[in-house]
Amino acid sequence: MTQFVDVKNMTRWIHRDGVEPIMAGMVQYLEDDFLRWEKFDKVPRVASHTPFGVIELMPTSDHQEYAFKYVNGHPSNPARGFQTVTAFGMLADVDNGYPTFLAEMTLLTALRTAATSAMVAKRLARPDSTVMAMIGAGSQAEFQALAFRAVLGIDQLRVYDVAPEAVVKLRRNLEPLGFGILAADSTDEAIEGADVITTCTADKARNTILRSDQVGPGVHLNAVGGDCPGKTELEAAILDRGRVFVEYPEQTRIEGEIQQMAPDFPVVEFWKVLAGQEHARCSEGEITIFDSVGFAIADFSALRYLRDATAGTDMQARIDLVADPEDPKDLFSLINSLKPVG
Amino acid sequence: MTQFVDVKNMTRWIHRDGVEPIMAGMVQYLEDDFLRWEKFDKVPRVASHTPFGVIELMPTSDHQEYAFKYVNGHPSNPARGFQTVTAFGMLADVDNGYPTFLAEMTLLTALRTAATSAMVAKRLARPDSTVMAMIGAGSQAEFQALAFRAVLGIDQLRVYDVAPEAVVKLRRNLEPLGFGILAADSTDEAIEGADVITTCTADKARNTILRSDQVGPGVHLNAVGGDCPGKTELEAAILDRGRVFVEYPEQTRIEGEIQQMAPDFPVVEFWKVLAGQEHARCSEGEITIFDSVGFAIADFSALRYLRDATAGTDMQARIDLVADPEDPKDLFSLINSLKPVG
Repeated sequence: MTQFVDVKNMTRWIHRDGVEPIMAGMVQYLEDDFLRWEKFDKVPRVASHTPFGVIELMPTSDHQEYAFKYVNGHPSNPARGFQTVTAFGMLADVDNGYPTFLAEMTLLTALRTAATSAMVAKRLARPDSTVMAMIGAGSQAEFQALAFRAVLGIDQLRVYDVAPEAVVKLRRNLEPLGFGILAADSTDEAIEGADVITTCTADKARNTILRSDQVGPGVHLNAVGGDCPGKTELEAAILDRGRVFVEYPEQTRIEGEIQQMAPDFPVVEFWKVLAGQEHARCSEGEITIFDSVGFAIADFSALRYLRDATAGTDMQARIDLVADPEDPKDLFSLINSLKPVG
Repeated sequence: MTQFVDVKNMTRWIHRDGVEPIMAGMVQYLEDDFLRWEKFDKVPRVASHTPFGVIELMPTSDHQEYAFKYVNGHPSNPARGFQTVTAFGMLADVDNGYPTFLAEMTLLTALRTAATSAMVAKRLARPDSTVMAMIGAGSQAEFQALAFRAVLGIDQLRVYDVAPEAVVKLRRNLEPLGFGILAADSTDEAIEGADVITTCTADKARNTILRSDQVGPGVHLNAVGGDCPGKTELEAAILDRGRVFVEYPEQTRIEGEIQQMAPDFPVVEFWKVLAGQEHARCSEGEITIFDSVGFAIADFSALRYLRDATAGTDMQARIDLVADPEDPKDLFSLINSLKPVG
């Protein structure tokens, strides 16, 4: 039997533990796994592209456990009443190959994407950061805000979205939680005085939602939305002005902001910062850029965290996903009996 | 909501419809999909190897529907009470990326592997074939036998397995269903007078369970067990003596019997036989060889068939696998409400 956390139980878990404690806990799991980065099997995600979206499989393994995530990205979905991104995933036991844990991951991906951004910003943003500009106020925005408050203490947001109703939604969700939120009329207004700039828009195109001349010294740029071939958000010139930190270069060069750059454009693998092999921020004035695309190891961490946090509770249900006859060499016995099993 | 067929309901379906009618129906779906082979996205499966087994993801898409299967292969599992192969898989709507159908696939893979073998043998075996030798009587054996009876009318089996208890199991399962079964003491005895030879053993090694001098003229060789790098069953010389038919050459050259041959070893893509672009059997005396490894398109067909055959029945349950908020741009609303959803 495989343990299963469905959407309802995912929301029960988030209610029980709270988004910010979950972000803090998930960052611990992420750091544990990023610190043993070299132990993991790593491949760029396996993508099936169509003109209107992408479906991807993201596998990884530490040779004890195997994880994969199914995730789609369909920018035109919201206009038709669907989520841009939905996901589910699982863990399996490498020793015998049996799936052990299945979970909804639309919400879990939102949590882990934001937790990863916060883990990185904790090392790269200026320690005195208090103000975050957010360009894009879609489904990921609240999670980013809560992760940055949980991990860096940032609670002042300056938000711009081409769709004003998205900012209205963000304020409705976050102001009751104590955030100070300025609804900006432009990107320029949003980034005024920001220590951190988070870009997170959904359009699958080569966009420039942030120009180089808009980015001042000392900023940490948390570039979340450029995560797919043909989908970028930053003017390329920005990338030449600071150090660019990535999860897994082989994947980021295909999917991230650096798809705009030469194949040998210099990047820093973030796990090396954690491991003390690369510098974090070098100066007050340095521009640091996290070219986030989302890598399978972060899903591995998120699934492990969810499983451990809900173990032994009724938030996990048993699901009969894999036939397991008494005699393992006699699969046919399952259907040869006079009546169905179970 | 995603529809779900678990193990219990898979067995209910097989009981309702019967293995042989299912094989016949599945062959129809397989032929439909193999005939439009060029329309599918095709990639070799994504494998994570360890010294004791492999975990694989097998995706494909016809640009209307997307399918993938999770499957493991652990030859040492049965000795520890586990299945060698377990699997589950799903269908998704390419248009919006949402998963629509999830199913156990340990049993379904057993059915589709055998149905694929039978579909191929229907074109390649001599039309007057009545006797099948089976080398290996593991979990796949009964399914192969039933598929060959359903599709080719073969009901005489000559079976050899290094483990005599496996043959006892096969007889126990199949003799009540009307098969004539000879329990052979050797491969030589098993293949005596056989029109079709099915090889299907589990050991992950470069084995020779069938030598070239054992294969006479006119035989159709259904080589099922060589399906993984480092796992072959046939003496390479056999492959030089007949035409070799494959599912997807790019994958078979990595995983199949032809991994023993040069990278340009000539093969025939089976879908071209269906489409009339390549000859089936050319003469009474020709040796034909199906180097079966299992390709994602066959899983796509099997999932579609299962879904269609169980649609509108209580064999499909609803599973809440993917968060789907009322406002698709407001994922946070799912966890921001005063109480959990559902």
